Amino acid sequence: MFQSFESHADPAQGGPRLAALRDRLVAEGLQGFVVPRADVHQGEYVAARDERLQWLTGFTGSAGFCIVLPGIAGVFIDGRYRVQVKAQVDLDRFTPVPWPEVKPGDWIKEHLAGGEVGFDPWLHTADEIAKIEAALSGSGIGLRACSNMVDAIWADQPAPPLGAAFAHPDELAGETSVAKRHRLAAELRASGHRAAVITLPDSLCWLLNIRGADVPRNPILHGFAVLHDDGRVTLYAEAAKFDDRVRAHLDEHVSLRPPAAFVPGLHTLQGPVRVDRTTAPLAVGRELEEAGIDVAWGDDPCRLPKACKNAGELAGMREAHIRDGAAMVEFLCWLEAQPKGSLTEIDVVRGLEGFRRATNALHDISFDTICGAGPNGAIMHYRVTEGSNRPVQDNEILLVDSGAQYVDGTTDITRTIAIGDPGDEARLCYTRVLQGMIAISRVRFPKGLAGRDLDPLARFALWVEGQDFDHGTGHGVGAFLSVHEGPQRISRISEIPLQPGMILSNEPGYYREGAFGIRLENLIVVGPAVPLGDLRDQYSFETLTFVPFDRRMIKRELLSLAERSWLDRYHAEVEEKLAPRLSKEAREWLKAACAPL
Amino acid sequence: MFQSFESHADPAQGGPRLAALRDRLVAEGLQGFVVPRADVHQGEYVAARDERLQWLTGFTGSAGFCIVLPGIAGVFIDGRYRVQVKAQVDLDRFTPVPWPEVKPGDWIKEHLAGGEVGFDPWLHTADEIAKIEAALSGSGIGLRACSNMVDAIWADQPAPPLGAAFAHPDELAGETSVAKRHRLAAELRASGHRAAVITLPDSLCWLLNIRGADVPRNPILHGFAVLHDDGRVTLYAEAAKFDDRVRAHLDEHVSLRPPAAFVPGLHTLQGPVRVDRTTAPLAVGRELEEAGIDVAWGDDPCRLPKACKNAGELAGMREAHIRDGAAMVEFLCWLEAQPKGSLTEIDVVRGLEGFRRATNALHDISFDTICGAGPNGAIMHYRVTEGSNRPVQDNEILLVDSGAQYVDGTTDITRTIAIGDPGDEARLCYTRVLQGMIAISRVRFPKGLAGRDLDPLARFALWVEGQDFDHGTGHGVGAFLSVHEGPQRISRISEIPLQPGMILSNEPGYYREGAFGIRLENLIVVGPAVPLGDLRDQYSFETLTFVPFDRRMIKRELLSLAERSWLDRYHAEVEEKLAPRLSKEAREWLKAACAPL
Repeated sequence: MFQSFESHADPAQGGPRLAALRDRLVAEGLQGFVVPRADVHQGEYVAARDERLQWLTGFTGSAGFCIVLPGIAGVFIDGRYRVQVKAQVDLDRFTPVPWPEVKPGDWIKEHLAGGEVGFDPWLHTADEIAKIEAALSGSGIGLRACSNMVDAIWADQPAPPLGAAFAHPDELAGETSVAKRHRLAAELRASGHRAAVITLPDSLCWLLNIRGADVPRNPILHGFAVLHDDGRVTLYAEAAKFDDRVRAHLDEHVSLRPPAAFVPGLHTLQGPVRVDRTTAPLAVGRELEEAGIDVAWGDDPCRLPKACKNAGELAGMREAHIRDGAAMVEFLCWLEAQPKGSLTEIDVVRGLEGFRRATNALHDISFDTICGAGPNGAIMHYRVTEGSNRPVQDNEILLVDSGAQYVDGTTDITRTIAIGDPGDEARLCYTRVLQGMIAISRVRFPKGLAGRDLDPLARFALWVEGQDFDHGTGHGVGAFLSVHEGPQRISRISEIPLQPGMILSNEPGYYREGAFGIRLENLIVVGPAVPLGDLRDQYSFETLTFVPFDRRMIKRELLSLAERSWLDRYHAEVEEKLAPRLSKEAREWLKAACAPL
Repeated sequence: MFQSFESHADPAQGGPRLAALRDRLVAEGLQGFVVPRADVHQGEYVAARDERLQWLTGFTGSAGFCIVLPGIAGVFIDGRYRVQVKAQVDLDRFTPVPWPEVKPGDWIKEHLAGGEVGFDPWLHTADEIAKIEAALSGSGIGLRACSNMVDAIWADQPAPPLGAAFAHPDELAGETSVAKRHRLAAELRASGHRAAVITLPDSLCWLLNIRGADVPRNPILHGFAVLHDDGRVTLYAEAAKFDDRVRAHLDEHVSLRPPAAFVPGLHTLQGPVRVDRTTAPLAVGRELEEAGIDVAWGDDPCRLPKACKNAGELAGMREAHIRDGAAMVEFLCWLEAQPKGSLTEIDVVRGLEGFRRATNALHDISFDTICGAGPNGAIMHYRVTEGSNRPVQDNEILLVDSGAQYVDGTTDITRTIAIGDPGDEARLCYTRVLQGMIAISRVRFPKGLAGRDLDPLARFALWVEGQDFDHGTGHGVGAFLSVHEGPQRISRISEIPLQPGMILSNEPGYYREGAFGIRLENLIVVGPAVPLGDLRDQYSFETLTFVPFDRRMIKRELLSLAERSWLDRYHAEVEEKLAPRLSKEAREWLKAACAPL
């Protein structure tokens, strides 16, 4: 079982640890210190040794930070974690701060008269620090880069992970690492840059066609890399992670060096060296600048090519989704057969993981399953624990958001399921969410549009009823990499033009606090649209996910002819693709689930 | 009759005039000269003396410019005018250039090796010139501000207009000029600006609650104004335009000065002086800078307040639209009663203007009526002339885009009408356009969204069939001012957040070259949405235009329940509002036209 149901939060530890940290700050002459959730790689999942925020405060969310000052310790959390934080931290010692509404710089000025606030320059990007410094400008308060004050007091801090790296086969990668390196090196030369520093683990995994095991859920390798303008790569990572097979997979133009050689290695580079100010640790740019090497701020060269999946990656993703869809259908068939009220949320999560394991191809789940029954469905990032576990009751709805890592692809799917009769209001809301999901699935659009331009299509049916959902419509997805991947998104703030090969989630939702939550999610991929009508140059989305939608939740009369026909065609395709892979029982269940509306 | 049907294009004049201009350039030591359509006020309608582009090239479109070089003279025209320009200019002497696809700077570099290209700094904004200069940078080609080379060779150039100014009553303006001036002066003081230069005629008309008669169609006054930070205004305009009544309407804090006093007046200002780099002539900023006065680049202070109509303006707009709707219905009833094939496009335009005149309130039409039968409907900005006039035939569709200026409001409406049976394909396309129009009419949306975010809703039904339209979905509309008004728009490039009181057109279309054109247009106004659903803070649109849509063109089965119910409710409201104002015959026609689908 990949998923566990323990709660790691321990509010009682916060007091003594906070006191120890403050003593340390006094010794260093600092007024405060910033403790981020992020590690040096700015990843969503971090290794145990990087769980500094949790260790200090008890808060286990996937984003946020703590600012410790003499009189107050603020835990900055976004809208998803407003409720959770209160259960996880000692509220006598830590003060939750709504973020990004409250800006860290403004908050520091409010609570501090002067002096210096420390931060670890390896855990923050240049952009992040520049924003805080701008806010503090003229206040008499400064930021000071320093060694990590939490590490200094964390006696039993775990060692860095040593997960084994492994080769990602060229046929799944769709392009050899050599070809990628030469393509990107040519781009560096065209930009007049001599090298690029790569600090994102999924970028270096993609570039070198390798994967790793340094954090849960995402098959990534922790390390840094420098791509030189002749296509050579220097990879800074623990040698212990590399067995002979993966060493052989890295050719002679990839030099493996220990992590401790990274900073000295930076000092030997010729500028201009490209560094990404939105993802690289501030320390990288500073080390280069202090060594007198010209820094060219620019995009991580892997980011866009990685986002635009090639034919090999797409073939793998399609196969992974059919495999995963079959497991989902076995699960849905099993779920329906259980006596109502007999299962808890944890039983459901265990059942689902079991069906995925039965594919014999499950490398990991792609994130902890969000399984919320009734009111728990309205908690957007709900992770069931022994403490919160709830029976799945009759006449309510169950939201299940889950995914798998297979070596050929990453999945992420949400279905919302009727248990008994959840009532007409829930069906109305479900139908509106479905209309949004269908609109994104059906849309064809001119080249050059960004996720921002499509986002309203997913919300229109809710908007006109005075409803909405407070998250983006879709995030980028990696191919056997991070399930949340940039830069593409479907969201109000995404200005990145959509390009062929970009994979996105399409997941509108609707949440009624204390009552129920609805979310429907397929993965989709951008491609040139089939010529139609006036033969305009358009893009459209191919759907990767094949799992039926719960027909008991659909108010047919609200759907337009075009929406109904999309859904009927989708269901016919689901049945055609999945039936050959199913047990007899699930095949029969699927036939009924996929009948025309 | 306001509208005329003459064609002003005369390609034969182009040759000798171009030769004369080139001689003049040689004498001035210039390699080229830019001849814009724009006048000093950057307006859409220009006075006869400012029709330099038409005088030189023959092209009569409402946007574009010509760049004359020794070997080539490029006429830059946007997508609307690609066909028209070919009929209007001498193609042996002038080369149409697709714009904005081809940038003027790039084009100059392609056709010129070095030297200076002249431009009149009163006819270009600072932004415009900066873009060309940036493109020319390093090319050895420079721009030189100079006197107008066309005026120098245009022997019989008409004099500037002297249309009579008149007061716009406070009850229609909804706010006294004094109140506006003090409100804006306070905003200037808050920005630390001592004065603002106002160069847009509709800004100064709005600010002073006056109107003018210097150009056709838009009741604007040509002039410049300076708003001082104490609320005083210096107005630079010809005294002959102001009779005693309008002088009395301008209070003692408005000083009227002759146009020639404008530049000397600028030199006396204390900085910082706000100048709008997107609308003010480049010369304004240069004059200030050369006099050592600090220029603060910023928005014309009238632009946003003018766009957000107050209760008085909205009341006038509503009344004007009901009056205009009744005239439109009399027209549609009359049109249907005429024997098929008996009318030409010009007859239709004359008929429509006649019904508007019959209201006894018509101040002007708000633009030349676009009346295109059959294939002429596919020409987006078609203006019928004696030469192009075409009978309205059986079994085709007729596009009529028209509007009126009443003292209480400006209208702009498009309806597309079946003559006989235009066939199923035309009905399919009409229905998709209607779906887009209904989507914008129905949408409720979170505060902060811009026109860009809503534009795709108007196109979705077309996009999914591989169709689209190559113009924005909507433009801003003034209140008894310009029918095209900024800054608000519904368009792919509009980032201006929509705010209560902003009036927009909602006019998706579909054009099939050589066959037919469809456009459906209502005016709408942004307002807080009626609380509904989760009581989220939303905006929605109130529809101002009340005229039925042609039910013979609607494929009912393609509409969703919600779309049908919007249309039925709209038609019920049309009948309720207009019936009391109609002739018996039109009332009966309307009853049938507004029956539920």
